[in-house]
Amino acid sequence: MEKSSDGPGAPAGLDESVRTELVSLRDSIDNIDAAVVHMLAERFKCTQRVGRLKADHDLPAADPAREARQIARLRELAGSAKLDPAFAEKLLNFVIAEVIRHHETIAGERQSGERDADGPR
Amino acid sequence: MEKSSDGPGAPAGLDESVRTELVSLRDSIDNIDAAVVHMLAERFKCTQRVGRLKADHDLPAADPAREARQIARLRELAGSAKLDPAFAEKLLNFVIAEVIRHHETIAGERQSGERDADGPR
Repeated sequence: MEKSSDGPGAPAGLDESVRTELVSLRDSIDNIDAAVVHMLAERFKCTQRVGRLKADHDLPAADPAREARQIARLRELAGSAKLDPAFAEKLLNFVIAEVIRHHETIAGERQSGERDADGPR
Repeated sequence: MEKSSDGPGAPAGLDESVRTELVSLRDSIDNIDAAVVHMLAERFKCTQRVGRLKADHDLPAADPAREARQIARLRELAGSAKLDPAFAEKLLNFVIAEVIRHHETIAGERQSGERDADGPR
């Protein structure tokens, strides 16, 4: 390796001012990532409740009309926040794919639970 | 289609109480998504500054040691927030891939800028 790390924050061998700047930026990135993880944890709590509602009322796991509205809205929000709208859309699709996977799991568990309840014991 | 949507929020033909619950959950999801988009816009401002620093000081766009620390930390944070650590890791990798793409673009622009500045005019 050309540059070795001497602890977390920034590569060694940099000017002190550059190193300080890099460490500061990385601290901000770490703070933002922690916030995003906690927001997404809360988001999955919501989508799990949606998943249970959907399973209880035999609604399909995916809802293309809702997803299209979400994507259009997020692209617009991203644009006004100067975030690449294409990236925001890819990210939302990534999260939605995970949510649908959860919904299908919940629906599958419900169905096997019903079979167990109906079946002989 | 079995269920038609009659406007944003929830499929038609549901019990009013279920529909209200679904709309409420979706409102929360939309609020969280807006927050995440704005956090990520701020994150990309940070990583763009990191990208410029890296390009100015000929540091590589990717930093595997830093990324390994970020992933380990986020997996731990995800676990304590009851978010699937594997999902958090996949998400961070997705974001980092985009950041590296940005860094390489910045570095490429710098190099072609230097060539232009050095060349005859």
